[in-house]
Amino acid sequence: MSKDNEKLALELAALTRETNKLGIPIMVVFEGVKASGKTRLSNELLLTLDAKYTHFIPTKSPSEDDLRYQFLQKYWNSLPGNGDINIYFRSWYAYYIEYQENKIKNNIYNKYHHLKRQIIDFEEMLKSDGTELIKFYIEINDKKRNEHLQDMKDNPLMSWKAQEYEKAISDDVYHKEMHEILKHASKGEWKIIDYTNKDEAITSMYKHMINRLKQAIDRFHKRNIDVDGDFSQSFQTKLLEQSLEKVDKATYKTLIVTLQGRLKELQFALYERKIPLILVYEGMDAAGKGGNIKRVREKLDPTGYEVNAISAPTDVELSHHYLWRFAKDMPRSGHIEIFDRSWYGRVLVERVEGFATKQEWQRAYKEINQFEQMWTDEGAIILKIFLTLDKDEQLKRFKLRENTIEKQWKITDEDWRNREKWDLYLEASHDMIELTNTDNAPWLVVPADHKKTARIEVLKYIIKKCEEKLWGVKQYE
Amino acid sequence: MSKDNEKLALELAALTRETNKLGIPIMVVFEGVKASGKTRLSNELLLTLDAKYTHFIPTKSPSEDDLRYQFLQKYWNSLPGNGDINIYFRSWYAYYIEYQENKIKNNIYNKYHHLKRQIIDFEEMLKSDGTELIKFYIEINDKKRNEHLQDMKDNPLMSWKAQEYEKAISDDVYHKEMHEILKHASKGEWKIIDYTNKDEAITSMYKHMINRLKQAIDRFHKRNIDVDGDFSQSFQTKLLEQSLEKVDKATYKTLIVTLQGRLKELQFALYERKIPLILVYEGMDAAGKGGNIKRVREKLDPTGYEVNAISAPTDVELSHHYLWRFAKDMPRSGHIEIFDRSWYGRVLVERVEGFATKQEWQRAYKEINQFEQMWTDEGAIILKIFLTLDKDEQLKRFKLRENTIEKQWKITDEDWRNREKWDLYLEASHDMIELTNTDNAPWLVVPADHKKTARIEVLKYIIKKCEEKLWGVKQYE
Repeated sequence: MSKDNEKLALELAALTRETNKLGIPIMVVFEGVKASGKTRLSNELLLTLDAKYTHFIPTKSPSEDDLRYQFLQKYWNSLPGNGDINIYFRSWYAYYIEYQENKIKNNIYNKYHHLKRQIIDFEEMLKSDGTELIKFYIEINDKKRNEHLQDMKDNPLMSWKAQEYEKAISDDVYHKEMHEILKHASKGEWKIIDYTNKDEAITSMYKHMINRLKQAIDRFHKRNIDVDGDFSQSFQTKLLEQSLEKVDKATYKTLIVTLQGRLKELQFALYERKIPLILVYEGMDAAGKGGNIKRVREKLDPTGYEVNAISAPTDVELSHHYLWRFAKDMPRSGHIEIFDRSWYGRVLVERVEGFATKQEWQRAYKEINQFEQMWTDEGAIILKIFLTLDKDEQLKRFKLRENTIEKQWKITDEDWRNREKWDLYLEASHDMIELTNTDNAPWLVVPADHKKTARIEVLKYIIKKCEEKLWGVKQYE
Repeated sequence: MSKDNEKLALELAALTRETNKLGIPIMVVFEGVKASGKTRLSNELLLTLDAKYTHFIPTKSPSEDDLRYQFLQKYWNSLPGNGDINIYFRSWYAYYIEYQENKIKNNIYNKYHHLKRQIIDFEEMLKSDGTELIKFYIEINDKKRNEHLQDMKDNPLMSWKAQEYEKAISDDVYHKEMHEILKHASKGEWKIIDYTNKDEAITSMYKHMINRLKQAIDRFHKRNIDVDGDFSQSFQTKLLEQSLEKVDKATYKTLIVTLQGRLKELQFALYERKIPLILVYEGMDAAGKGGNIKRVREKLDPTGYEVNAISAPTDVELSHHYLWRFAKDMPRSGHIEIFDRSWYGRVLVERVEGFATKQEWQRAYKEINQFEQMWTDEGAIILKIFLTLDKDEQLKRFKLRENTIEKQWKITDEDWRNREKWDLYLEASHDMIELTNTDNAPWLVVPADHKKTARIEVLKYIIKKCEEKLWGVKQYE
């Protein structure tokens, strides 16, 4: 390496110690045709940085297992923690081109526009949350490139790699698609580097990295944690004012068995059709979420569903984008995931308790809609259940819990503290339902003052929605 | 459910809240032939327990991806955290039978004895560490069983499941193998439950669970955290007394390039032959581990290796068996994983600083040997490098770091504190090398007072060992 580049490398390394200390997550993308020099260039970067917080993530063709998950799932799973630097050796862009070219999941993505939009949303969410996203596109002149390829073919230990290259997506296709993407990108979004002169390419990469990290550090110090986002009014949703006719005991007893039996059959039908089902439960404390979930899952085959009961985040979870811990638990095709509380914590408890800044929770409504759409785009069913309770009924249930030995463990000081903030939680719930009640992932608000009625209501709703999806309106033409 | 069983369920639920609070990890295994009732029974248990700390883990046939990893990898990955309960619906036993019956990785496991031993070691390690391991084998009479199967076939929505059953390992094979395992198990190791009478089966399961959890809680309170393990002498290994002839500057300059080029070729050869390489680095502070690793990786293809630089464990890692966080980063076939510090922390820093109890670190030598053997059993290469330094040379390097602006970040108060415990670390290192220098995963002790010499030495050693494996002695007959 030239002396100048060595100096730049030292400067960059020092800056990354700074971004690591500040907790800024960094994602660096390398795209480029085969044998363009992106291996050497990304390796140069990798060797410059401290292995303690640097990860190298190559994009491979989707495996059978990958295809059972959402398009971006593997990138959600591998998001950098705060202060980490992830180097993506080819990325969701190459992955997108492979989907499109090989017509992967073609029945779902007829024109693959969805995926382009998902990529934009994904990057936007990460950037809003403080991730520094740096994208390189590496080019090289044909002569140099053919030299690289020939070197590879001439080495008996590496010639198989050259053969693998020939099996992969052709460079012509990749090149054409990437240029389409680059053409529509905003100014400065991609840094294009010509690798024909190696030393100059390295200089160019280091300078761009240094420049971007300085900007990121600058932005970090200037960030204002208490500004508003794009939302400032409060809603009053009519959904919270409904009431239901009570189901009597005898009807409940026969109905619940029928509905559970039907849901079990639907579980198998969803499995066979590879449709994932995501159930989200939110609601007031003591509204009966646990009991309601129990009736939904009671007859299901336990090998095909999971319940994710959300507790306070671990330190690793806190050190990631807030959607990371939910994304990685999303079900694979044909499976059911039940969230007992969910990502909506961002606009409920985190809003009310101030764990998220104003800007963060106000931005979250849009982000959550985009997030959910990534799954429904691919045919997942998302159903969101909100159990409401009136304030007096909650008090009655709290007291019952305190006075019944087997139920005492269910009531904590935190429940009483939350109750004091009833109005704030109610306001947050109103806003949430109003702003995230989308066609593709609707809310069902269920008055839960009579638990048995609420259970029947929820079961009927899930069954109806699954039947619609399975045998009703055709979803994708 | 009968009233009696409801009472038992409540008792069990209360006990699991206790084991959760105490942080006792629990693993419950359900084995049994198809349609024996183990789904219903395990579901009964699942519904009894709090979803916050209960996970249901079905064993599926190994996927293509699974087969790129060590036999037990997926079970290492899914170990319960402290206080969690994992229910395994079929387990490493069924997995073992499938390996054997379908002759999976047959060239490696000629007689599959290795796997049986791995299972014993695996369970032993977990139990020693406080995991409560409860194993059920479910039986049923043929008449009832055929009724279950017929029910399934008669339901149009579930008949495909009956068909899947027919494709899987035959019950005869499974039954025969499991009975062989049960025959050789120690008394009380397995609880056999007859599901012919459902209510009695549930009673039997609850009672056994209650009994075992009570014992676990009892043992937890009685545990003595400061007793010795099976090791009480201190060793003086001759390996630490070696010296090396210095490599001069000119020789280094040409030699390093040749060796790095050769290692790169070997990386591709290992990849083609699907042999994973695991490099473990330990050594005194300032011995030059980072620089040594840099020379090893410098020319490698970054898509085929990773460096795992070990920091203090996160809270999630602390809440698992100490080997968990390393097991989950072990390389898949054909890849290279470099550990900059490793599981040997258990018998170095954790021993010296008292983070592990006496019994824990004294037990660890044997556990580590068993752990490493799980990987070498399957053809992985494990090479362990220990860089030694004398105390004066360390002082010189510490001072140099303090006095050089670009190196100041490398020296911390912790380094000075560790230096004060030099003798304790040296003693721990002696013991470690003496007790874990196995044929299948040997130590190379390298005097590192001259960094360049140490780099050449390590590169030569790795190359030699890889060549031996690739083209030398035949490993498996």
